Amino acid sequence: MSSTWHSFMDLTIFGESHGPAVGMVLHGIEPGIVIDETKIHEQLKRRAPGKSLTSERQEEDELEILSGIYQGRTTGSPVTGIIRNKNARSEDYESISGWMRPSHADYPALVKYHGFADPRGGGHFSGRLTAGLVAAGSIAEQALRNHFDLSVGSHIVKLGSYSEANWSAEDLIKSEKYRQMNIPCADPDTVRDLIEKVREEKDSIGGKLETAILGIPAGLGDPFFDSIESRLSQLLFSIPGVKGVSFGEGENFAGMRGSDANDPYFLSQGQIRTRTNHNGGILGGITTGEAIVFQTVIKPTSSIGMAQTSVDIRLMEEKEKTIEGRHDPCILLRAVPVIEAAAMLAIYDAYQKDTGFHD
Amino acid sequence: MSSTWHSFMDLTIFGESHGPAVGMVLHGIEPGIVIDETKIHEQLKRRAPGKSLTSERQEEDELEILSGIYQGRTTGSPVTGIIRNKNARSEDYESISGWMRPSHADYPALVKYHGFADPRGGGHFSGRLTAGLVAAGSIAEQALRNHFDLSVGSHIVKLGSYSEANWSAEDLIKSEKYRQMNIPCADPDTVRDLIEKVREEKDSIGGKLETAILGIPAGLGDPFFDSIESRLSQLLFSIPGVKGVSFGEGENFAGMRGSDANDPYFLSQGQIRTRTNHNGGILGGITTGEAIVFQTVIKPTSSIGMAQTSVDIRLMEEKEKTIEGRHDPCILLRAVPVIEAAAMLAIYDAYQKDTGFHD
Amino acid sequence: MSSTWHSFMDLTIFGESHGPAVGMVLHGIEPGIVIDETKIHEQLKRRAPGKSLTSERQEEDELEILSGIYQGRTTGSPVTGIIRNKNARSEDYESISGWMRPSHADYPALVKYHGFADPRGGGHFSGRLTAGLVAAGSIAEQALRNHFDLSVGSHIVKLGSYSEANWSAEDLIKSEKYRQMNIPCADPDTVRDLIEKVREEKDSIGGKLETAILGIPAGLGDPFFDSIESRLSQLLFSIPGVKGVSFGEGENFAGMRGSDANDPYFLSQGQIRTRTNHNGGILGGITTGEAIVFQTVIKPTSSIGMAQTSVDIRLMEEKEKTIEGRHDPCILLRAVPVIEAAAMLAIYDAYQKDTGFHD
Amino acid sequence: MSSTWHSFMDLTIFGESHGPAVGMVLHGIEPGIVIDETKIHEQLKRRAPGKSLTSERQEEDELEILSGIYQGRTTGSPVTGIIRNKNARSEDYESISGWMRPSHADYPALVKYHGFADPRGGGHFSGRLTAGLVAAGSIAEQALRNHFDLSVGSHIVKLGSYSEANWSAEDLIKSEKYRQMNIPCADPDTVRDLIEKVREEKDSIGGKLETAILGIPAGLGDPFFDSIESRLSQLLFSIPGVKGVSFGEGENFAGMRGSDANDPYFLSQGQIRTRTNHNGGILGGITTGEAIVFQTVIKPTSSIGMAQTSVDIRLMEEKEKTIEGRHDPCILLRAVPVIEAAAMLAIYDAYQKDTGFHD
Repeated sequence: MSSTWHSFMDLTIFGESHGPAVGMVLHGIEPGIVIDETKIHEQLKRRAPGKSLTSERQEEDELEILSGIYQGRTTGSPVTGIIRNKNARSEDYESISGWMRPSHADYPALVKYHGFADPRGGGHFSGRLTAGLVAAGSIAEQALRNHFDLSVGSHIVKLGSYSEANWSAEDLIKSEKYRQMNIPCADPDTVRDLIEKVREEKDSIGGKLETAILGIPAGLGDPFFDSIESRLSQLLFSIPGVKGVSFGEGENFAGMRGSDANDPYFLSQGQIRTRTNHNGGILGGITTGEAIVFQTVIKPTSSIGMAQTSVDIRLMEEKEKTIEGRHDPCILLRAVPVIEAAAMLAIYDAYQKDTGFHD
Repeated sequence: MSSTWHSFMDLTIFGESHGPAVGMVLHGIEPGIVIDETKIHEQLKRRAPGKSLTSERQEEDELEILSGIYQGRTTGSPVTGIIRNKNARSEDYESISGWMRPSHADYPALVKYHGFADPRGGGHFSGRLTAGLVAAGSIAEQALRNHFDLSVGSHIVKLGSYSEANWSAEDLIKSEKYRQMNIPCADPDTVRDLIEKVREEKDSIGGKLETAILGIPAGLGDPFFDSIESRLSQLLFSIPGVKGVSFGEGENFAGMRGSDANDPYFLSQGQIRTRTNHNGGILGGITTGEAIVFQTVIKPTSSIGMAQTSVDIRLMEEKEKTIEGRHDPCILLRAVPVIEAAAMLAIYDAYQKDTGFHD
Repeated sequence: MSSTWHSFMDLTIFGESHGPAVGMVLHGIEPGIVIDETKIHEQLKRRAPGKSLTSERQEEDELEILSGIYQGRTTGSPVTGIIRNKNARSEDYESISGWMRPSHADYPALVKYHGFADPRGGGHFSGRLTAGLVAAGSIAEQALRNHFDLSVGSHIVKLGSYSEANWSAEDLIKSEKYRQMNIPCADPDTVRDLIEKVREEKDSIGGKLETAILGIPAGLGDPFFDSIESRLSQLLFSIPGVKGVSFGEGENFAGMRGSDANDPYFLSQGQIRTRTNHNGGILGGITTGEAIVFQTVIKPTSSIGMAQTSVDIRLMEEKEKTIEGRHDPCILLRAVPVIEAAAMLAIYDAYQKDTGFHD
Repeated sequence: MSSTWHSFMDLTIFGESHGPAVGMVLHGIEPGIVIDETKIHEQLKRRAPGKSLTSERQEEDELEILSGIYQGRTTGSPVTGIIRNKNARSEDYESISGWMRPSHADYPALVKYHGFADPRGGGHFSGRLTAGLVAAGSIAEQALRNHFDLSVGSHIVKLGSYSEANWSAEDLIKSEKYRQMNIPCADPDTVRDLIEKVREEKDSIGGKLETAILGIPAGLGDPFFDSIESRLSQLLFSIPGVKGVSFGEGENFAGMRGSDANDPYFLSQGQIRTRTNHNGGILGGITTGEAIVFQTVIKPTSSIGMAQTSVDIRLMEEKEKTIEGRHDPCILLRAVPVIEAAAMLAIYDAYQKDTGFHD
């Protein structure tokens, strides 16, 4: 089912943006992993609005753990966490009730759920649901770090007119520090100005991120339906706004020759390594031991402050309306921890499948 | 498990490129669907090598149906099909045994399977396994066409230096005819020359396809982990060589404004439609009723005819070797029916989940 | 994973008996079903201790719905419910910490979870977790009743020396009224006295229930791994204490001839019916339209008030100890609503698989 | 889906009794396991009709392995095996076409599959499909024996008027030798005479088996939905004719006291063991390290040689008919290897889930 990810682990995210709470149940995590709740909160804070310029909404996402952690360690039973909804101004949405917001899920959800979906905010379709994904991902990351010396980071490769090169080997080594940046790129000021301008124009803007994970050994993943690419993309495309996912050279592959794109092996201190990493650390769906590198394209926020013309389903006629309330001009920044969380879940799940529930 | 796709339906693909047979079991297809086996063979033929310039290997992929079809109709029980392997020249691979082919799965598979994977050709990692996917996809397509008036097609948007624009609304309507083309694009001669040149240089080349499916109603799919994007990408990334998947505007979204990217609704003969379709027929993971449009990036074939230097695992030293045998200079052309098959499976599965095993 | 049931629907139960809360997430229920929360509470009350003589512990199981229900109807999104734990006397368990309680999960859980499972009470292994199952089952029942005119009931066929015959056709019709009985059988006084005596002797007692569900049409379920028997037994054996499940004649089949056990068809007012129902309404794993009838064997409560000798894992020596606290002398009575809930889930899930997410 | 078992491993069984072949795909078995195909054939032979008095039909079940085994070892990829159907006399079934055989799946399958199921013999519902289960179980058993010193065996505890006691500790040790017996019980001659008599009377008879597995360590399995009981019962109830499953004392629990039924721990040569094993080696759904013991009730064969009256669906009237062809008077004997195969699959799957794909 759509809000349950069923693999070696099971993750269910639940809630509606204006209901009592959102949350998650993560099942299948090995027992005995030390979980630092402050680290979960750090990640939730990276996702929360208001952290930078990107939104005015101030949410305090306080996670209450209901099960699965005892004396600071995972028990092996389902870990449940809930975040109460506060400060949700439902009235912002009332004026547009019945009006199918352009590029939102309103209309297809109406068809699918026969009009019974919770219409307040985005209901269950809200980006707020990704808070559960972030909490689960932080737990997975803490478990992974118990086994491996990880480095995780993301940077902006494109955002409107701004662009920068894919990561080089040197950049990869420094990737972890990008997690401390609100605008993870080489020139945050330019990007901040760009987003600020977009906001002033009551518009929004899309972008593209590149994420790297260093420290994962060779041999995780599978061919075909459980390839690391398949697992990662399933989770990444579950994040609202994501419209493209690519690995390694990604888009560049379309113009490359095999003689340039191949990654030959060599021996580095007795270890088998590849001289280049065009394939982003994955071959045949399985990790090669090199950095896992992928790109994620995020569309411009659908909610913009401008007036738009769309269909009012109750009147069955077109109406011009303006979506009131607070809008993120660029959800890409808040998506960074969600994308990283998805990656942690996909990789930890692959790891556990190979090594078992209790390693 | 990696070679079983488990959703509403279950699909298992099995076999090794030099073993007795490859094949598939597709379970969960509704009973009573008329299956025309010649249509399955048509699709298999599109995937087979030797259909155009793209390879010299001549396989006759003859599918034997072992179960699930009785008197020309699906019974509701698992449909099993096998294709015997013939004409497989294992000796081509012996000279490179132990030598880790660059950008193949050899090395990660060695780590994962502890050296027990079938090493002949690509073993279970071979692109030949996608024949099972094509057969299953053709069955899914025939079932879908029982319910909807479909149109399906793909074209090349990039292939080395060649590029053409994403499909316009008019192109989409003509998409079906691209299925009859060996090189589905506006200028097949140029592309043929390009590939021929690459082959002469013993190299290979990557590319990017765009695929469209017209005729799917609004309301199929789900938010989050079962979004149409998640389902499709899981299957697309299971195809060897696929390194990027995007939807609608895809990569373009990274430079777009919300005011340009949004798809407002209007009324067209009493029906709710979107004026534009930047989102590729999917919002909130659910179909909107517009054409489903996605792009797939395929890397250059890993097997090239040039000499390459890589590690021989038995000697634990670097060796220069040449991969003998027949190579596709551009697997993109053979990938077209595989990509379309994956799309048919993903969409039919979503359809059945919503309407049930017997509609 | 073990606490997630993954079928057409997904159900996760979570919590520990002495943690903050227990609860459940039920995903995949069709949208628009009217949910009466008082009916959920009625079922929870049937499961709660203290409802009859069977335990002294007084829990008030108050369910808080966190998601998936809006304006009294299911939305189609995950339904989450939590029940806070109160009145849990952890100290009762401290004196036996490290002592492997006979016939509890203590020892195998210690091996499996490497000592990290929550040891308070039964932790995640507690029968208290079945509260989530009951809540989910009540929702499934309300959905089923939206489609069918159901009748559901259970009676005691054996409890120590007490026994009564399997249900006749006439009994079946009256089955629903057994749900109002604390001790659902022909002679509640005798059974009450028997249990009372067992309690005075600080002992416990096992039993066997028979459950019937009337009103389910023919054609639900599947052959093999998704047979109605397979689905039901998977859920029934997930209930702590259940050690036997049988269908229709159940145990009697072992002594029967085919000529006696077969259920021939006849025409009853133009409808195909069976003259007898030895098979309990299921053939080939699929419902026949007759009453679904099954038996459940429940072992005596493992926690008894007598002193027992078992191994203390910390000292690695045998110790005689007495388990303090409140014990149910016969968990069978509290198991009735849990068993009925499991049946409702299994059948509703089979129904939805055949008719789809939105019928 | 019903003919795919989806757990840590995936098993799909396919085929129809009068189609080209039956078979199975088993996916998720660890790489490198030595597979002796003669051992698979031994198990298939135990299941085949004609091995004893129990049927006249002579099938030669020759398994052809199509994938997943290379040079005598599992590769880690899906193992596919097919058995061609020969000697299937479809004409035996023609005379009863449209006549709903009592206690067969004909009628519910008609409703479910809308008349499109293969009607020859039992079609996909045939007991012949269990050949695939036996082959898969033999592979699982060989893998398990690679890790543990197993002993597996079954005996008849009831068959019509014949009955014998559940296994004692001493019997358990000798359990393995029961596998060599066509009629595994203390008095095979009596049982043979009984079955012979039933056959002469053109009738059939049910029975009950007890199966034991020794050598499985403590700690496998899970609470709730993946309990060893839940896993085993799901697979056991997928075997046509199985109508009851119980563990340890099974039915006896209904009359027992906790003080008798509890299994206290003691120290045996430094190891934690239970003095008794009333619980059949499973507590809280997890193995205790003691023998896994369960009972299976099998109903009398539905196909009997007597005339019976049932509904002819084409005429919509009752007709007396006789099912021609060869009937097993007691399928219990042929069910023994199927039951043992199901147990091997369930346990090996639980083992792999805990230890991972490559141990």
